[in-house]
Amino acid sequence: MNRDAIKIGLLGLGTVGTGVMRVLHDNAADIARKVGVPLRVEKILVRDAAKARTLAVDKSLLTTKAADILANPEIDLVIELMGGEHPAKDYILTAMKQGKHVVTANKDVVAKHGKELFDTAAASRVDFQFEASVGGGIPIIRPLKQCLAGNKIQEIIGIVNGTTNYMLTKMSQEGCDFHAVLQEAQEKGYAEADPTADVGGLDAARKIAILASIAFSSRIGVDDVYVEGITQITPGDIAYARELGYVIKLLGIAKEVDGQVEVRVHPAFIPQTHPLASVNDVFNAIFVKGDAVGETMFYGRGAGELPTASAVVADVIDVARDIVHNISSRILCTCFNNKPLRSMEEVPSSFYVRLIALDKPGVLATIAGAFGSQGVGLQSVIQKRKVDCNAEVVLVTDKVAEKHVRNALRVLEADDVVREIGNVIRVEGGNLS
Amino acid sequence: MNRDAIKIGLLGLGTVGTGVMRVLHDNAADIARKVGVPLRVEKILVRDAAKARTLAVDKSLLTTKAADILANPEIDLVIELMGGEHPAKDYILTAMKQGKHVVTANKDVVAKHGKELFDTAAASRVDFQFEASVGGGIPIIRPLKQCLAGNKIQEIIGIVNGTTNYMLTKMSQEGCDFHAVLQEAQEKGYAEADPTADVGGLDAARKIAILASIAFSSRIGVDDVYVEGITQITPGDIAYARELGYVIKLLGIAKEVDGQVEVRVHPAFIPQTHPLASVNDVFNAIFVKGDAVGETMFYGRGAGELPTASAVVADVIDVARDIVHNISSRILCTCFNNKPLRSMEEVPSSFYVRLIALDKPGVLATIAGAFGSQGVGLQSVIQKRKVDCNAEVVLVTDKVAEKHVRNALRVLEADDVVREIGNVIRVEGGNLS
Repeated sequence: MNRDAIKIGLLGLGTVGTGVMRVLHDNAADIARKVGVPLRVEKILVRDAAKARTLAVDKSLLTTKAADILANPEIDLVIELMGGEHPAKDYILTAMKQGKHVVTANKDVVAKHGKELFDTAAASRVDFQFEASVGGGIPIIRPLKQCLAGNKIQEIIGIVNGTTNYMLTKMSQEGCDFHAVLQEAQEKGYAEADPTADVGGLDAARKIAILASIAFSSRIGVDDVYVEGITQITPGDIAYARELGYVIKLLGIAKEVDGQVEVRVHPAFIPQTHPLASVNDVFNAIFVKGDAVGETMFYGRGAGELPTASAVVADVIDVARDIVHNISSRILCTCFNNKPLRSMEEVPSSFYVRLIALDKPGVLATIAGAFGSQGVGLQSVIQKRKVDCNAEVVLVTDKVAEKHVRNALRVLEADDVVREIGNVIRVEGGNLS
Repeated sequence: MNRDAIKIGLLGLGTVGTGVMRVLHDNAADIARKVGVPLRVEKILVRDAAKARTLAVDKSLLTTKAADILANPEIDLVIELMGGEHPAKDYILTAMKQGKHVVTANKDVVAKHGKELFDTAAASRVDFQFEASVGGGIPIIRPLKQCLAGNKIQEIIGIVNGTTNYMLTKMSQEGCDFHAVLQEAQEKGYAEADPTADVGGLDAARKIAILASIAFSSRIGVDDVYVEGITQITPGDIAYARELGYVIKLLGIAKEVDGQVEVRVHPAFIPQTHPLASVNDVFNAIFVKGDAVGETMFYGRGAGELPTASAVVADVIDVARDIVHNISSRILCTCFNNKPLRSMEEVPSSFYVRLIALDKPGVLATIAGAFGSQGVGLQSVIQKRKVDCNAEVVLVTDKVAEKHVRNALRVLEADDVVREIGNVIRVEGGNLS
C-alpha cells in the first residue's frame, strides 16, 4: 500500500503517554524501517494544553477535544492511555466504529469490557491490542496469543503487581511491618495515595482475568476472580515462611483442571527454589505452564513510563504492519470456549496456618485432631514462640480441597484451647517438575 | 480466503518432528479455531519409511522422496526438522522458490545462511520463521522481532545451551569434575556422544549470532563470535566463585556500545543475585536489556521433543494466519545495518584469575605489581590454598579493556614466581540496575 506515514492519535499524555512519545521519537528511524513507513503522531488529547511538561512537544499537536482525534479521517490508529473506565471505553468504541485501529494500556477497560471491545473491533475490521495492560514492559499477551499458541495452557502464576511485590520484598528483607512499608512505598511513588486497588489485590485480579481469558480461550471477568490482598501479612508470617523454606508473594493464579478453570489472587507461600521466588522489588514475572512447552517464565518491569511505553509501541508497530499489508483482525479474540469455574471450596492447596493457643499440655493434640477429623494431614508443625501466656502454633497442611481446611478451622474456632487464628495462607508452586 | 485446510509438508520425523506431530494432533481443534481453518500434514519425509516409531502415524503420509513435498503444488508450508546444513539448506531454498512458506528449527542453517534464506523468502513472497532455532520452547525470536520492536536493544545475555548448563549445575551442586559430569550427561542423553559443539561453545555461538543479528538489526555470523567453552572449568573455580558471591555459567553475550557490536560465548562469573544465576539444570534463559523496557528475561526449556515442538507450532500457526489473510513477509528481515564489531581486546570486563605461584614472601606484591604496571586494579585477592609447595592465588580485577589484563598475564608468565596461570574467567552482569 502506498502511504507516506501511519498517522496516530494519542489519548492522554501522562506518564505512559510521555514515554510513548519519547520511544516513538528516539527510535523513529529503526521503527520506520521495521514497519516500512514512518509513524507520525498527529494529535494528542490532553486535559490542559497549557500545562508545563517535561516532554518537548509541538503545541500544535495538543487538543482538548476528543473529536479532533476520534472524528479525524486522517488518523489510522488511536492509542488510549487515559486509564480508568470512563470516558476511555467510549472513546475506544467510537474510534473503532470510525475504522481506527486501537492500542490501549487500560487493564480496567479490557478486564471489564473485553467482549464488547473485541466484538466491536471485529465488526469494524480493526485491530485491538493491549499488551501493556498486563506486566508493563514484559511481553506476555503476545507470547500467549502467538508464541505459545500451540499449547494447551495448564497454569499461569504471576507476580503482576509491582507495588505489593516491592512491599513484600521490603518486609522480607528488613522485617518491617505492613504499615511502615506502605508509607515508604508511597513516599517513593511506588504506591498511590489510595493504595486499596494494589494492596487489596484488585489490580492483580484485573490482570489475571485478562491472562486467564487468553490462556484458556474462555472469558474470565474480574468478578470471577477470588481476591485476597496482603494487608494481613505480618513480619512473623514472613519469618515462619523463611524458616519453612518459602517466601511470601502476592500471586495471580489461573489453572485449568479437568475442564474447570480456577482464577484467584492471594498471598501465597512459594518454595525459595521456585523461579518466582527471586523476583523482587517492583519487578513482575509471569510463570506459564503449557502441555508442550512445559514451564516458562517472563520477567521484567511491570510498570513505569518507558517499560510500559515499550509494550504500547510494540502493539503500535504490530498494528502498523497490518495497516501496511492492508489487513486487520489477523489474530482474533480467542474466547471461543465457556469453561465452568471451579469454586474455591474445591481448589486443592496446602495451607500455612498460624494459631494462638493456650500454652498447656494436649493443645497440639487438640489442634492436630481438629484437622484429622476433617481428613486433613499435617506436613509440619512448629510450636515455639510465646505470645503473652499463649503459644504460637504454626502448621502446614497436606494438599486438600479448601473446604476441608475451612471446616477444620471452624472446629478450632469453637474450641476454647484456640485463642485466635492468626493467619491462613495458601502454599503454591510446590509441584514444580 | 476460502480453503478447507492449510497443507503442511514435514521434512524429518526425529525427536522434534515427532513432537510437532503430537502437538498438531493433540491440540488440533484449538489450533484450527485460532487459525480459522485446520492444519493438515500431507507428507512427511523420512529416511526409512519402514522404521518402527513411537508415534502412531498413517504410513501413507511417509515418503523417502523430498520431491513429494518440495514439488507438491498442494503443500502450502514446509517444516524443516532434519537439522544440519545439507541437504536442509537446499530443501528450504527449493521450497521457498516453489512458493512454499518455511518454518525451521535449524540453527546451523539460520546462523550460517541467514541472508540467502531471507533474500530468497522475500523474493519468493513467502514467510520464513525459525523461533525454535534458539532457546527451544522459550519465546525469544518473536519477542525480539515484535514485542521489543520499539526498543534499541542494548544487551543480550543468554544461557542458551542446556547441556553445559546441566553440567555446570551438577559441578556446582556436587563438586564433581568436568569429565565425570560429562559422562553422566551422556548417560542421561543430555550430551551427545561427540559433545564438542556443546562443551566447546559452538552451539551457543550459533544461537547468540542469531539473536544478535535480530537485536542489533545487523548481520552477525558465527565467525564473528568469540568462543570459549567450559572444558577448562574446575571444581576449584566453582568453589572460588561461590566464595566470592558468584556462580559460573556458559553465557552467550551480545552488546552494542557506541555503535559497535560485541558478540561472545564464554564461561563467566555472574553474581548470585542476577536473574540468570538461578537458571539451573537443562533450563535456558535469555536476559535482554532494551532502552525502553529495561531488563527482561525469558526462561524455559531450551530443548526436548515437546518444548521445541511448541516453538515450531507457534511459527506454523503464525504462518497459517498469514496464509489465511493472503499475505507474506509481514515481518521482514531487519538486518538493515552493518555495524562494526568490537575486538575482544577492547571489550571491558572484570576478570577472575587463578594462579599457582611460589609460596614465599613478596609473591603477592609481584602479582599485584604486574597488574598495576598495566593499569589494572584489583577488587579482591584470595591466597590460602596450598598446592604442593606452591600457593594458589585468586584475584578479581577491576573492569578494564581485555588487552590490559592479557598484557599483565604475559608479564606474570615471564616471571619465575608464577608457576602456572590456572584459569582466567570473565565476570558479567555486575552492573544490574
